[in-house]
Amino acid sequence: MKKVAVILSGCGVFDGAEVNEAVLTLLHIEKGGASYQCFAPDIEQMHVINHLTGEPQQQQRNVLVEAARIARGKIKPLTELKVDDFDALLVPGGFGAAKNLCDFAVKGAEASVQKDMLHAAQAFAKAGKAAGYMCIAPAMLPLLYGRGVKLTIGNDADTAQAINKLGGEHIDCAVDNIVIDDQHKLVTTPAYMLAENLLQADAGIGKLVAKVLALA
Amino acid sequence: MKKVAVILSGCGVFDGAEVNEAVLTLLHIEKGGASYQCFAPDIEQMHVINHLTGEPQQQQRNVLVEAARIARGKIKPLTELKVDDFDALLVPGGFGAAKNLCDFAVKGAEASVQKDMLHAAQAFAKAGKAAGYMCIAPAMLPLLYGRGVKLTIGNDADTAQAINKLGGEHIDCAVDNIVIDDQHKLVTTPAYMLAENLLQADAGIGKLVAKVLALA
Repeated sequence: MKKVAVILSGCGVFDGAEVNEAVLTLLHIEKGGASYQCFAPDIEQMHVINHLTGEPQQQQRNVLVEAARIARGKIKPLTELKVDDFDALLVPGGFGAAKNLCDFAVKGAEASVQKDMLHAAQAFAKAGKAAGYMCIAPAMLPLLYGRGVKLTIGNDADTAQAINKLGGEHIDCAVDNIVIDDQHKLVTTPAYMLAENLLQADAGIGKLVAKVLALA
Repeated sequence: MKKVAVILSGCGVFDGAEVNEAVLTLLHIEKGGASYQCFAPDIEQMHVINHLTGEPQQQQRNVLVEAARIARGKIKPLTELKVDDFDALLVPGGFGAAKNLCDFAVKGAEASVQKDMLHAAQAFAKAGKAAGYMCIAPAMLPLLYGRGVKLTIGNDADTAQAINKLGGEHIDCAVDNIVIDDQHKLVTTPAYMLAENLLQADAGIGKLVAKVLALA
């Protein structure tokens, strides 16, 4: 049975992992006959957003502790991820991917990757193991895989331009489809960068997970 | 297109709505060709549990605000639920259903239902509209539908006994199956009272949602 590491960035689209994307990712791993272990960095969130109003809340929350809500408590600190134990890596999106796993949401083309995330994700890259990034998470791929990495975040022109400045090669993609970088065994899909409902997100994420498992 | 009201009880299995159950519920509503609107009571959670450690946290969180994390902000206060606008009601589980929507988790056979939840759920019962409750949420059904209501929460003997004391008729049920109370157009499934993985939860919840939509 193939084993997949899943890195979550909190719990909630505006300051953490997009909840639907995370759950659909885990569901499709199981549908594909593989198993998973969730991880998240043991760090404070960039901030806490009230998801009803969209406004910041005066509160601190920990990325690992909040991500545990999605994982039903079965989650480990990202520093414990050993690449040798897994066949593939999956990273759901949500603003947490661009606020907690890296700072692309605030720094754009000047972004850098959180150190635990950098270490874990580059280990998969160096080992030549398959990986899938969804929604806004692919924005950090040039910082993980280097110049010329092919990826999609959908079709937002400003975001695509910032990614290209980081050294990526952005390719427009429909919500129910994927972009494959064969050289890097890397698969990306727009998910909630474009999805207007769960069926659309499910279609793209289903394709992404199936392809990553096939490459693993 | 049939319209379904979904009542969430927070965000996270130990103090709110079970995240997987909530997402799978919404996914299967869309797969069934129906639409949904999420609701939650605008009240403080009974408490906040650190989902990494399982211990209570010294913090207050609002059920509606946290449930908005699952609903991507598209959620309304439960007091705004008008039964005439919907064909059916769905209530995912998680401890939030037994801590925030009612107090079964702490009071057992002496439980009572939160007033907004009581008002909304009884409106569906009185209108003879279809409803589906999953996981521990069915424990409150005797308080909503009266004596003799048929339901399942899986096969936990102590919980079943407390439900029967409340006036319910508990029926043991496998994780991938449902119990139907035809008289009340009511469907229940064990979900994460028994599920050991997402595929099991998906099987039971898929059946429940399909049956509720057929009854609606």
